Amino acid sequence: MTTTMSQLTAPEKLAAMQSAMKSQNIHAWIIPSSDPHQSEYVADRWTGRAWLSGFDGSAGTVVVLQERAALWTDGRYFLQAEEQLAGSGIELMKQGQPDAPPINEWLADHLEEGQVVGFDGKVVSLKFVRSLEKSFDSKRLSLKTDLDLLDELWQNRPAMPAEPVFLHSDAMAGKSREEKLAEVRQEMAEAGADHVLLTALDDIAWLFNLRGSDVECNPVFLAYAHITNDSAQLFIDDRRIEEEALAALKASSVELRAYPAIADSLSSLNHTTLLIDPATTSQWLVDAIADSVDVVEATSPARNLKAVKNPIEIKRMDDCHRRDGVAMVRFMRWLEGQIATESQTEFTLDQQLRAFRALAPEFKGPSFSSIIGYGSNGAVIHYCADQETCLTVQPKGLLLVDSGGQYEDGTTDITRTFACGEMTEEEKNDYTLVLKCYINLARARFLRGTRGIQLDMLARQPAWAEGQNYNHGTGHGVGYFLNVHEGPHSVSPYFLDVALKPGMLITNEPGMYRDGKHGMRIENIMLVEEDTETEFGVFYKLRDLTLAPIDTRPLLLNKLNSEEIQWLNNYHAKVRRELSPLLEGEDLEWLIGATEAI
Amino acid sequence: MTTTMSQLTAPEKLAAMQSAMKSQNIHAWIIPSSDPHQSEYVADRWTGRAWLSGFDGSAGTVVVLQERAALWTDGRYFLQAEEQLAGSGIELMKQGQPDAPPINEWLADHLEEGQVVGFDGKVVSLKFVRSLEKSFDSKRLSLKTDLDLLDELWQNRPAMPAEPVFLHSDAMAGKSREEKLAEVRQEMAEAGADHVLLTALDDIAWLFNLRGSDVECNPVFLAYAHITNDSAQLFIDDRRIEEEALAALKASSVELRAYPAIADSLSSLNHTTLLIDPATTSQWLVDAIADSVDVVEATSPARNLKAVKNPIEIKRMDDCHRRDGVAMVRFMRWLEGQIATESQTEFTLDQQLRAFRALAPEFKGPSFSSIIGYGSNGAVIHYCADQETCLTVQPKGLLLVDSGGQYEDGTTDITRTFACGEMTEEEKNDYTLVLKCYINLARARFLRGTRGIQLDMLARQPAWAEGQNYNHGTGHGVGYFLNVHEGPHSVSPYFLDVALKPGMLITNEPGMYRDGKHGMRIENIMLVEEDTETEFGVFYKLRDLTLAPIDTRPLLLNKLNSEEIQWLNNYHAKVRRELSPLLEGEDLEWLIGATEAI
Repeated sequence: MTTTMSQLTAPEKLAAMQSAMKSQNIHAWIIPSSDPHQSEYVADRWTGRAWLSGFDGSAGTVVVLQERAALWTDGRYFLQAEEQLAGSGIELMKQGQPDAPPINEWLADHLEEGQVVGFDGKVVSLKFVRSLEKSFDSKRLSLKTDLDLLDELWQNRPAMPAEPVFLHSDAMAGKSREEKLAEVRQEMAEAGADHVLLTALDDIAWLFNLRGSDVECNPVFLAYAHITNDSAQLFIDDRRIEEEALAALKASSVELRAYPAIADSLSSLNHTTLLIDPATTSQWLVDAIADSVDVVEATSPARNLKAVKNPIEIKRMDDCHRRDGVAMVRFMRWLEGQIATESQTEFTLDQQLRAFRALAPEFKGPSFSSIIGYGSNGAVIHYCADQETCLTVQPKGLLLVDSGGQYEDGTTDITRTFACGEMTEEEKNDYTLVLKCYINLARARFLRGTRGIQLDMLARQPAWAEGQNYNHGTGHGVGYFLNVHEGPHSVSPYFLDVALKPGMLITNEPGMYRDGKHGMRIENIMLVEEDTETEFGVFYKLRDLTLAPIDTRPLLLNKLNSEEIQWLNNYHAKVRRELSPLLEGEDLEWLIGATEAI
Repeated sequence: MTTTMSQLTAPEKLAAMQSAMKSQNIHAWIIPSSDPHQSEYVADRWTGRAWLSGFDGSAGTVVVLQERAALWTDGRYFLQAEEQLAGSGIELMKQGQPDAPPINEWLADHLEEGQVVGFDGKVVSLKFVRSLEKSFDSKRLSLKTDLDLLDELWQNRPAMPAEPVFLHSDAMAGKSREEKLAEVRQEMAEAGADHVLLTALDDIAWLFNLRGSDVECNPVFLAYAHITNDSAQLFIDDRRIEEEALAALKASSVELRAYPAIADSLSSLNHTTLLIDPATTSQWLVDAIADSVDVVEATSPARNLKAVKNPIEIKRMDDCHRRDGVAMVRFMRWLEGQIATESQTEFTLDQQLRAFRALAPEFKGPSFSSIIGYGSNGAVIHYCADQETCLTVQPKGLLLVDSGGQYEDGTTDITRTFACGEMTEEEKNDYTLVLKCYINLARARFLRGTRGIQLDMLARQPAWAEGQNYNHGTGHGVGYFLNVHEGPHSVSPYFLDVALKPGMLITNEPGMYRDGKHGMRIENIMLVEEDTETEFGVFYKLRDLTLAPIDTRPLLLNKLNSEEIQWLNNYHAKVRRELSPLLEGEDLEWLIGATEAI
């Protein structure tokens, strides 16, 4: 009986990879975490790094040399990677730690002059390749990007996803395909380009008013798009497009071509200008572009346009958030009754919360894998409860619930932390501090041109004043029935030169985490809105879209100043006003109690 | 009788320039505001832009075409430039306004394919040339940088400055020349360079523990430096180095070469690596570098090292600020007695303030031209009182005094705004708001890695909350008996990726300006210090070095919260404690009154 590759142990897989490298005369092989579209979350077909190394966190890159191998991942995953890599023969490189050089430097250190570094050019962005090349010059290393060693080794590799692609109606989207194409073309013209290549899956879903389900929790589908002033080509396996969607595309004169034909389309260009986004365009596509083409590198116009929600999207999102708030209220009331029974686990809570959301006909599924952590699990920032090993909720301490839904009229993302019973002083203090951070950002008024890095400071100030911090960004952009993480903006200390604009969404989600003890986070989605114009310019403000009570039981009231208390009471009054008409009986009673002024 | 060029009118100068351009086949000639070292303030020899255009603000660039000419300047100078350019034939380009394209775009728009753009390669940085070239490609414009048309036209052009260069003792500097050279060499090695070229005058003064007075208010001298692992060359006219300094340089094995010999030194390099700072290295020097040299571009190591003050510098600066505080107290007490007499002008106040500073033997002169603005002149951010036209101070409204001194043990920069008598509600409200902004930054505690753009947000938050703002940075770095503006850091919305470190100085100077009515600013120099280390990392705080009472008479107390009042009282208690031993009689009495708790 022969052993198939999929049954191989991790060291055997590594040895097979190294043997394949030797036969191809490749001295280093890189396996990143991305798909051909540089998606943050990928379909199973592109989980090769997990297949080879055993490490299945969301971020990590394996580099295999002929005699050794290493995996780079970030602080969220040090512990998990250490456990999952044990015995694999793959070293762990803890990103940001002094003894973990960046991949490019490590390669330059470990390879001989003139050796070959390879990777599947489809799953690596131009930006990444550039970062490699910079340090390769001195050693004259060369790149091989036109083969995929994994394909040869990985038997039973999952196929390309091919889920149905369906219409997201103009009425839902708030703008027709034609309007969006016109906007993209205007951005194209401003950038001095006659063509634009779109590669990011959410950009394409947004532009064509289509949705799919090729990636879990992300309503996108595999496709490329190529736009010119008078044509729009969508590269997709058209057999999976639902009839109604097909008709709509036809009506908009969208030309459909086979998914892999994008390469031909790029190589047939002739003395023209093409806009590409180096962050999401793969090396494979760059290689396909004809030599005579003048390439303009810029952020994808669709990415910039999509981030600014239109008035209809905003109106619908308000509905969507009321609906999600109703599910949250039902869940919270139910939870309160369950805690004393000690019958619920982190896993069963997730099922119940999903069931409450699913009562709404517009619900399409979760927008990400819920993070439901009780007690010390609350401190694991990217915790994912496992049915077998998860904790049972007891009538004490805190429970963190971070979840969200995909609806046909919006994407939600909300975190609440609940008092389950008696709490320590540290728990109360930390919880109050998190709310102070939340409010400090929520109350911000800021001048046009302000970037997320500036707002991030507001959220952190109350924590930093006490020597506390949370090791993650304060907030991220959010899609509209699209990916729960959406750029180009963020609110974080990351040095990103993107100003916030009216119509953008950001989450506001400060937290506090004590290893082995407890963790808490409070998160709403906020909309950037115009506030006033004065002699100094136009000022913006933030409005909470998320509507659900914030647990007041853990608060140390003497730690809140009068502005903070007023903010909380105003928010709760709004939650009550907006959700009351949609609730009745005990749920309504519970809401009224939970939104009492403090 | 022939007319010499220096008596020419502005249009005649312009015509002469255009005629010189035509004879050299040059289609555009650029005259920036800088000297061969990219200094912010320059000796008279490099005020050619003012000579040609008549506009003598501190920032501006003239571009002359064969048939027209324009001057670019920023918002501080729109009014002044408009007045001074009138009748010159030179258009005003208001930087940042929609109808003022950047210089590179304007040139690309107005020149024909293949034409020639010229400038004196000595006074333009590599960085600036790059910004030009980017937009020149499409038009195939070429650059001519090896001549100085001004030199031919400008009769009686001021000579190269040649003031004495004197020793800044190791005891004052806190570090010997040798220690500093060793630090520069370590940075050099870390950047992978065998040579470093230093061009910024304050870098060179700092490194060699020398000072001069080639530029008004800036104790620097014209020189270049070229450092290797085992040599240090200083390019300077050595006849002007004082004996003691000469001996010290010799003892440190510093090789002295003629100022212009720097070009030979660079062209004689052979297959080696040279670090240059593209922001301060002129095109002329870049052209001189031998082809075989591998150039490493980075911020000057001396710039980074100089910014972090050493413990002896800090101790001496504390002394220096006490001394400057004494001068300020004497001035404030004297001022109070003068106001009712209506005998003092903005100009005479400046003279008196300087006289109080000059009582200290360590005083070397002002660190910049004072900004003393009474009433509506307070709103002119870069106001400079003219003896003929300045205002007389009256017993009402506010007086803004922004001034500083050069001492052999520090450089000061302080702004106070004084109540002269009755004030409007708006004046009181604005003044209180400025103090709130000041305190919000002064109280900051921030995690290692925090940049100035993040801290800037703290200072602005109270103003933005009311739809107010000030159109300048919140703060800048400060030299140690060196330039009052010093990089590489700042506290401003400018997108600058430089983290603050313990030992760095920043000014904290929010303001509020109402055109035609009033202006106010409060400014201290603050030192970044380590605060605490927690599980989240090392936190920093800011300590006020500047010691002088802040006028409490304009404050609306009900607009200050208890933390703000406590901060102000603590600051005043410190000012009283530090300055009392140095004052006596009526000055001491006045100090005690001015630092009463509110």
